[in-house]
Amino acid sequence: MWRPFFQPYHLIIVQDGDPSKAIKVPEGFDYELYNRNDINRILGPKASCISFKDSACRCFGYMISKKKYIYTIDDDCFVAKDPSGKDINALEQHIKNLLSPSTPFFFNTLYDPYRAGADFVRGYPFSLREGVPTAVSHGLWLNIPDYDAPTQLVKPRERNTRYVDAVMTIPKGTLFPMCGMNLAFDRELIGPAMYFGLMGDGQPIGRYDDMWAGWCTKVICDHLGWGVKTGLPYIWHSKASNPFVNLRKEYKGIYWQEELIPFFQSVTLPKDCTSVQKCYTEIAKQVKAKLGKVDDYFNKLADAMVTWIEAWDELNPSGASKSSDLPNGASK
Amino acid sequence: MWRPFFQPYHLIIVQDGDPSKAIKVPEGFDYELYNRNDINRILGPKASCISFKDSACRCFGYMISKKKYIYTIDDDCFVAKDPSGKDINALEQHIKNLLSPSTPFFFNTLYDPYRAGADFVRGYPFSLREGVPTAVSHGLWLNIPDYDAPTQLVKPRERNTRYVDAVMTIPKGTLFPMCGMNLAFDRELIGPAMYFGLMGDGQPIGRYDDMWAGWCTKVICDHLGWGVKTGLPYIWHSKASNPFVNLRKEYKGIYWQEELIPFFQSVTLPKDCTSVQKCYTEIAKQVKAKLGKVDDYFNKLADAMVTWIEAWDELNPSGASKSSDLPNGASK
Repeated sequence: MWRPFFQPYHLIIVQDGDPSKAIKVPEGFDYELYNRNDINRILGPKASCISFKDSACRCFGYMISKKKYIYTIDDDCFVAKDPSGKDINALEQHIKNLLSPSTPFFFNTLYDPYRAGADFVRGYPFSLREGVPTAVSHGLWLNIPDYDAPTQLVKPRERNTRYVDAVMTIPKGTLFPMCGMNLAFDRELIGPAMYFGLMGDGQPIGRYDDMWAGWCTKVICDHLGWGVKTGLPYIWHSKASNPFVNLRKEYKGIYWQEELIPFFQSVTLPKDCTSVQKCYTEIAKQVKAKLGKVDDYFNKLADAMVTWIEAWDELNPSGASKSSDLPNGASK
Repeated sequence: MWRPFFQPYHLIIVQDGDPSKAIKVPEGFDYELYNRNDINRILGPKASCISFKDSACRCFGYMISKKKYIYTIDDDCFVAKDPSGKDINALEQHIKNLLSPSTPFFFNTLYDPYRAGADFVRGYPFSLREGVPTAVSHGLWLNIPDYDAPTQLVKPRERNTRYVDAVMTIPKGTLFPMCGMNLAFDRELIGPAMYFGLMGDGQPIGRYDDMWAGWCTKVICDHLGWGVKTGLPYIWHSKASNPFVNLRKEYKGIYWQEELIPFFQSVTLPKDCTSVQKCYTEIAKQVKAKLGKVDDYFNKLADAMVTWIEAWDELNPSGASKSSDLPNGASK
C-alpha cells in the first residue's frame, strides 16, 4: 500500500531485536538498514543511549539521516482513506504542514490559516500573520486510537471513525502528547531534540519514548520560536497492541507522568540557549536536578540525553543540524 | 428556519437604532423585546455603558436575562447543514459543549475527549482528565467566513466550505478572536465578563465588541480555572458585510489591537480576584493604567467597564451571577 507514497523517498530502517535475523525489504526502494551491531559499531560506547527492544530505537535513524525532513511510522500503520474514499498521501500532507508556517502565539478559530480556502479571522493581529517556521507535523490515526493501557482495557472496542479535516498549531506554552506513529519533523531545525529516551530492554518503562521526545521538543520549539502542528494527515492504525503488555510497560510512566508534566510546564531555558543542542543539554541538567528524586531512572535518562547530543554532534559535525540550503533537503 | 430550534427557548431581542420603529416578531415565540428607551429607563444614567447603533448593544440582553445559558446570534445567520445534509441544531451542540468539561491545561490530539467515540490519548495525565467547567462555547460559520475588512477586500470571493467535525478547548494562556455571531456561554459562570464595550454611535471604532469581550473573558476564565471551547456547531453566514464600511469601523482597532494583544497576554490578576466582577474591575483598572496612553478612548472604555459591572450587580443582586441550582437554568 505504501509503495506509491514511499518509493520516491529515501528509507532508513532501524532493525530492532536480534541482529542475526534478516529483514527482507521489497525491491525498488532506496534504503539503508541498521541493526544493533551497526548501531554499536557506529556509536561505540555512546550506543548506550539508543534503546533496545523498543520502538524508541528508531531515533538512531533520525541521527544518521542526512535529509532535511524526517517521517517516522509504526509497522502496523496503513494507508487511510479520506471521506471521499481517496487514499491519503500522508507524506505529502506532512510536507505541506512543515513547509507552511505555524501560528503559536494566537489561536485562529478557522484552524490553519495557510490552507486553501482559509485565512486569519477578524481580530487576528496583523503583526502575527507571517507566522513562524514549523518544526513538527503530528499526524493522527483512524481506526485504533492511540490510547494508554487503562483506556484500552476500559474501551476495548472503541474505534476512531471521525475524520477531522483540520491542521492546527499547538499554542505556545501548551504541552501535548506527541505520538511517534505518524510523525514528521524538520531535522535541521529540531532533530537533536527528537531523542526517544531509554525504554525497553533493561529499562523500567516503555511507551513513553515519543511522549518524552514530544515534551522536550515542544519546550524547545516554544523557546526558539518554532511551531508544532497537529491534525492531518491520518493513517490507518490496524491493530491495538496488547493492553496487558502495555500496562506492564506503562504503569510507572502513568504515575511519573504526573510529576513530568508540571516539570515540563515550568522548565525555563536561559537566553543563551540559542541552539537545540544547548536547550537539550540544559533540559538534561534540569531533569537530573529535579526529577532524579522521583526515581533514579531519571538520572540515567539525563546522562543518556547528554550522550545522545554528543553522538548527534559527532555524526553531524559543524552545525549540520542548523538550517542549511544544501540540496540534501526534502529531495526525492 | 430557526423556528424548530429556537421556539423551545426564551428569546431576548435587543432592538438597535430608532426605538419608534416596531419590530415584528413571528408568533409562537416566548420573548422579551427591549429598545433604547427601555434600556435608558431600566439602567438610568448607567445606560451609557450600552452601545447604540452597533451589534454591541446585545450585551444588554445578557445582563437582563435570568437564564443560566445564553446563546447569541447575528441577524444574517441561518441554519447550516452537516455533511450528511442534516440541519444542524446549533443550540443543542452549544449546550453539549457547555455541559461537558473543558481541558485547558494539556492538549488532547483527538480533540474533545468527552465526545462519543473519543477519549484522552496515551500520555494525557490522568490527574487532568476530570476537566474543568466550560464557560464559553464558540461556534463557527460556513459560507461567509468572519474576516476583517482588509481580508474581505483582498479575498472577496472566499467561502468557507470546510466542515471541521471537532470541538476543542482553547488552551490556558492562549488568546483567541471570539466572534459574537454564533456564541454561547454560561451566564452564571462568566456573564459579567461578556461586556461588548463601547462601539458604534459616538465611538471611534466598531467590530471589536465581541473581540474585546473575548479577550477579557479568556483572561478571566484562565484565572478562575474555567474552559473555553471552539469548533462545532456551524451556522450558515449568509452575507458578507460591506468591507468599505467595515474598514472605516475597524481601522483604529486594527492598529490598537497590536497593543491590546500584548496587554491581554501580560495581564495578571491577583489572587483575591475570586469572582468575575472582581476580575473584571481589576482589568478595567489595568486598561486605564496601561492603555489610556494608547488613546483616550480606553479611559472611557475603562469607565464604561466599571459602569457595566455596577449595572450588572444592580440588576442581579445577591450574587445571582454565581452558580445556583434555581430552576431558571437551561429550562425550556
